[in-house]
Amino acid sequence: MTYDANNPFARILRGELPCIKVAENDAALAFMDLMPQADGHLLVVPKEAVAEIFDLSEASLVASIRMTQKLAIAVRAALRPDGVFIGQFNGAAAGQTVPHVHFHLIPRWQGQALKMHAREVADSDTLEAVAKRIRAHWRAD
Amino acid sequence: MTYDANNPFARILRGELPCIKVAENDAALAFMDLMPQADGHLLVVPKEAVAEIFDLSEASLVASIRMTQKLAIAVRAALRPDGVFIGQFNGAAAGQTVPHVHFHLIPRWQGQALKMHAREVADSDTLEAVAKRIRAHWRAD
Repeated sequence: MTYDANNPFARILRGELPCIKVAENDAALAFMDLMPQADGHLLVVPKEAVAEIFDLSEASLVASIRMTQKLAIAVRAALRPDGVFIGQFNGAAAGQTVPHVHFHLIPRWQGQALKMHAREVADSDTLEAVAKRIRAHWRAD
Repeated sequence: MTYDANNPFARILRGELPCIKVAENDAALAFMDLMPQADGHLLVVPKEAVAEIFDLSEASLVASIRMTQKLAIAVRAALRPDGVFIGQFNGAAAGQTVPHVHFHLIPRWQGQALKMHAREVADSDTLEAVAKRIRAHWRAD
């Protein structure tokens, strides 16, 4: 997938589009997925302008997975899901829809199927309420 | 998910069960999934005895994601898939079947659905042939 500097995540990183932010450091930003596949669906986006994991620098890779792990811990504490799915998709054939590398973090509950990806935009007050619960358990370095 | 020291990945790490190895370093081991969801389906397993990502040390986490990234590059070069899926499942509700933390790396081809997880054991000669192609592109540090 070719990088496009006007992809929505690049625009969020530049502050041109809003997001419901959950965590941020020098290397990565985490925010609520606007079309969540389950409650608490988060995206962790390295700030480096790269489309796929193959081209991501080691520093960005490490920062992203560390933020993802810490958010998994926060999500578990905040939402008490039965499981947590972490997914990173490269290429449309693997389910990637935005050409900026990102990690999905999706809480899972037993017997509750995932919603279809990128179909329905969630209510922003609902997303903000979930974000607030996760932020309460977020521990920056 | 509770850690079980006799889980199959722990037994592979101890050399009590065989595996078709693709890469190894002090912190992690990568081998072919015996029940692949697509050709070239790999597992990256940190050597630390931990069931889920929440409890993985930073050193093991970083070693695992770096090996996963480098294998993604090797798989892309060896098998020329249309995409690469990376997945890390915590808890049965998220699809975890073995209680030892691991990363799935699954090549994807356009129009080719994934096989069901953990249903059918592949022929070991076929797995070894794919592993050989991936190893040819693996670059250790």
